[in-house]
Amino acid sequence: MRKLTDFRTPFLAIELDTFYKNLERMQAIKPGLMLRPHVKAFKSTSIASILEQAGYSKFCCATIREIEGMITAGFGDDLLLANESLDVSGLSSVVEQGADLTVAVDSIETIDAACEAGIRRVLIDVNVGLPRCGCDITEVEHLCSHAKRKGLDIRGVMGYEGHLMFTKDRSQREKGVRKAMHVLGTAHSITGGDIISAGGTGTFDLNELATEIQAGSFLFMDSRYGTLDLPFEESLSIVSTIISKDLNKGRAVCDAGVKSFSMDYGKPSFKGGVVEFCSDEHATIRPVEPESELELKVGDLIKLRVPHVDPTIAKHPKLLGVKDGYVLEEWKVDLRDW
Amino acid sequence: MRKLTDFRTPFLAIELDTFYKNLERMQAIKPGLMLRPHVKAFKSTSIASILEQAGYSKFCCATIREIEGMITAGFGDDLLLANESLDVSGLSSVVEQGADLTVAVDSIETIDAACEAGIRRVLIDVNVGLPRCGCDITEVEHLCSHAKRKGLDIRGVMGYEGHLMFTKDRSQREKGVRKAMHVLGTAHSITGGDIISAGGTGTFDLNELATEIQAGSFLFMDSRYGTLDLPFEESLSIVSTIISKDLNKGRAVCDAGVKSFSMDYGKPSFKGGVVEFCSDEHATIRPVEPESELELKVGDLIKLRVPHVDPTIAKHPKLLGVKDGYVLEEWKVDLRDW
Repeated sequence: MRKLTDFRTPFLAIELDTFYKNLERMQAIKPGLMLRPHVKAFKSTSIASILEQAGYSKFCCATIREIEGMITAGFGDDLLLANESLDVSGLSSVVEQGADLTVAVDSIETIDAACEAGIRRVLIDVNVGLPRCGCDITEVEHLCSHAKRKGLDIRGVMGYEGHLMFTKDRSQREKGVRKAMHVLGTAHSITGGDIISAGGTGTFDLNELATEIQAGSFLFMDSRYGTLDLPFEESLSIVSTIISKDLNKGRAVCDAGVKSFSMDYGKPSFKGGVVEFCSDEHATIRPVEPESELELKVGDLIKLRVPHVDPTIAKHPKLLGVKDGYVLEEWKVDLRDW
Repeated sequence: MRKLTDFRTPFLAIELDTFYKNLERMQAIKPGLMLRPHVKAFKSTSIASILEQAGYSKFCCATIREIEGMITAGFGDDLLLANESLDVSGLSSVVEQGADLTVAVDSIETIDAACEAGIRRVLIDVNVGLPRCGCDITEVEHLCSHAKRKGLDIRGVMGYEGHLMFTKDRSQREKGVRKAMHVLGTAHSITGGDIISAGGTGTFDLNELATEIQAGSFLFMDSRYGTLDLPFEESLSIVSTIISKDLNKGRAVCDAGVKSFSMDYGKPSFKGGVVEFCSDEHATIRPVEPESELELKVGDLIKLRVPHVDPTIAKHPKLLGVKDGYVLEEWKVDLRDW
């Protein structure tokens, strides 16, 4: 059996026991159609297969590339592009071939683009507080009428309360979700339809309105989520080699840098030291206690925690599934890029 | 001829006129063997070919993957792995097949790894002030002796003054480079050899000691470099589509997010607005003047400036070369990953 040392660093490793425990915990609270796993988190049809075996058959995606790849891999049964796109024309052929595709729309332009691509099913994406996509609540009726005139099937609404994912206090988070979902509920009373699609890992068990939760990173857990009271644990880490160490043992350098992890939620962390400085191919590590010495040796493998899972996975070609130090799985990140 | 609108966003575009002007300006100051272009910046053998045609035949790389890819593409004549690696054993076969490879070493361990891989040529990497790799000046003699005992050919020294790349004042930068190169010169007096490899885009014309400058991003220019008095201009941008806009025209959202640009030097910038908030697949744009309205429409293509080129290119599968709005080149980023 292969060990971590058989692979060229840096790479991403998933502790399989933790990964499957996270999946079980999600199944216990949001089984089957209550969760629409978000492919954007892992961009891997291998992981989509595992989720399917666990009873999750309806996925959502953030990019056309993810949609195409999921359909090619046989996951074309009720697939949601949970994002606006003007470039859905490339999806015409998969729709013609029978893929059951729904897209999020929040403007006349995105409705028209869906229509021209032959896509028949939409969700009206409503802004519920995150300063990003989603129409204003006052626009829902107008967009609804336009979509109906175009002959589209409005399956319901979508509204992502992303501004609340990291609200630390659970009751504050819950209060925020209620407020956001009040907006989405109002929108739904206008659109009708079976679907109210919302939520994420941070609010998955607090969102009582959503008929389906869009979550994906619960399988891996951003280290930033660690400050929250969620029932999931970190399964993902960046495995890196110590390639240099200074004379006084006050500095060690590993071969993972900003090309192998995302810095938008801050630097990765590490038990045996402090990540002080990150460059393209390196992270410089200092002792936790200044003036003390690092225990690390040149050649050591270390595991860095991942502040932000989704854009970190998107930087890698594969995910290695590990149990008891052995690599049991090699999952391709086959839905990268655009 | 293809236009920008023929490609799915987000993607990276290079203004070819600016790109070639940057190359010419480098040729005027550091022609031929005075520059060892750094492949880490662009990870593309297509761009290596352009540099070769411009008279640059000796390259350096940061990863084993880059080295392998460059050798496979025929650039195996005096190639430098300008980084420490314990994992060079994978390079044994290319060395046996005649690739002329030199590696940077800064420890007994990296010397031994090179030796075991059959690599015969090394540079002693010396720390000249950046808190990263490179041995202490007091270790040079010991490492030199060890490398010689192992039968390695010590071609000289390497020392990257990366801590000075963004020092704004030119005379301060120059002073810093002199100080750093004093250390490297001392190291070179111990090692001997023909090569003193140092520098980068920010110090390329200030480093008078180096026999060769390691630079790559001068072709594209980080927007962060824009604050410096360098003779290069920004040629790279992220092309993205506006996919959503709010009712009051105070917010627009484009389809490029942290999966398509690196945030370690900050958010990308944009002439027609302020990038306020970046998420995985989106950037939210506000008007430059608060309370004013954005000129952007849903469907518009915009170009975002790139704060940090190298890790941004590493996120993309291709680079599109553009002239007068037409896409004339499609260069594969074929040396990504590890």
